[in-house]
Amino acid sequence: MKDLLSKTILKWSETLHKECLPHISIDCVVFGFHNNSLKILLLELIRENTWSLPGGYIKKVENMDDAAHRILQERTGVRDIFLNQFKTFGKFHRSEGFFKEFDDSFWLKQRFISVGYYALIDYTSVTVRNDEFSHSSKWIDVSKTPTLMMDHNQIFQEALAQLRRDLNYKPIGLNLLPEKFTMPELQKLYEAILGKKLNRGNFFRKMKRYGILTKLEETRKGGAHKAPDLYCFNLEVYNKALENGLQENW
Amino acid sequence: MKDLLSKTILKWSETLHKECLPHISIDCVVFGFHNNSLKILLLELIRENTWSLPGGYIKKVENMDDAAHRILQERTGVRDIFLNQFKTFGKFHRSEGFFKEFDDSFWLKQRFISVGYYALIDYTSVTVRNDEFSHSSKWIDVSKTPTLMMDHNQIFQEALAQLRRDLNYKPIGLNLLPEKFTMPELQKLYEAILGKKLNRGNFFRKMKRYGILTKLEETRKGGAHKAPDLYCFNLEVYNKALENGLQENW
Repeated sequence: MKDLLSKTILKWSETLHKECLPHISIDCVVFGFHNNSLKILLLELIRENTWSLPGGYIKKVENMDDAAHRILQERTGVRDIFLNQFKTFGKFHRSEGFFKEFDDSFWLKQRFISVGYYALIDYTSVTVRNDEFSHSSKWIDVSKTPTLMMDHNQIFQEALAQLRRDLNYKPIGLNLLPEKFTMPELQKLYEAILGKKLNRGNFFRKMKRYGILTKLEETRKGGAHKAPDLYCFNLEVYNKALENGLQENW
Repeated sequence: MKDLLSKTILKWSETLHKECLPHISIDCVVFGFHNNSLKILLLELIRENTWSLPGGYIKKVENMDDAAHRILQERTGVRDIFLNQFKTFGKFHRSEGFFKEFDDSFWLKQRFISVGYYALIDYTSVTVRNDEFSHSSKWIDVSKTPTLMMDHNQIFQEALAQLRRDLNYKPIGLNLLPEKFTMPELQKLYEAILGKKLNRGNFFRKMKRYGILTKLEETRKGGAHKAPDLYCFNLEVYNKALENGLQENW
């Protein structure tokens, strides 16, 4: 089994050597929102028996942003994902210590500078595709992120911090929530991103004041309690508000 | 002259090939503030007869951030410059068309993905050092930026946009102004970054309300008019305020 895996890796490495730029990788922090909790997509690697962010390499004849889209589409089956490049990670020793049993000419063993993108994705639209190197892909609650390989915990933390800063500037809610949602769901999303509880009444008033939400005629059926009101984003007002930045100290 | 230049470039290229990572460059947008105007540092290249941002390459055994500091220290003579990585530029064709007369094996002709940093620097502390490839280095008013090589105009525009967003989060004023400054100077700096005029009374009131400035006993001597008040930043309040972000819609 181990030999077979090594052979597969060697073959893959040869292909990458031919097709991709050396020394530059892409790492993606993929956020999804489900059951009132903010999650990220993680891969469990067979070889190193560790968790990793999804990522990949840039083809020699490919725009970098297109590479990020391709990598995520291959992994999730979703096209046109909302992607935001947030930071590039270039410490000298960041990718050291992996593939120790291969010699230095092995493509995957070289030093990589990694460009970080965060992605916002509709949780329900994803069909994760594993490959020869990952046991499984799992959505993990951001508050329960395990130890990841290399500096991937730092990359995740920086993505979350950027998401926090972007709350007032980018259509985060629009890209993480289903088209119709309740006010408590929106509040849960904000709380998950900000990492703190918000006062329910204040949150409701602030959202009303922005005028970025449209209250729908229908309500959510099926619960034991009174059917909660449903909302959607008023795209015109929402986009306009984000252009100037929502001036809000959460 | 042209042959000599080509030889110098070939030799330089060989050194870079030995010492630096291929395919990755660094470009720096260096901001300075002088005579009430926001300026960037530009190089006039001999060879292409065009303007360029200062930049360089990452040594194989060097952290990326350290490379950015080294590149700027070599160019300006200033150590420990305030640097902020803001975006990485990775379009396939971005560095095409340069060094046309060299063959494809020429190191400087390869595709480069460029990591953008902006720097804030005390204008008065800079002693610009030219090299074999630049006629001259000049501070140019941001509103008068000429056409730059490759995608450097875009890199500059993105740096300025990031500087604008960072006004409420990073010590921009502290790093661009001299230690002691007048309120009109501070206002001019904000106006230059924001690209618009601000109301003098409102600006004064907002700055007072933040409590981030300390009014000094001394005034500025020497003008024809009444000596204007001098201020400095109250670092404790300023840093605390930036941590949460100054909630201001300029």
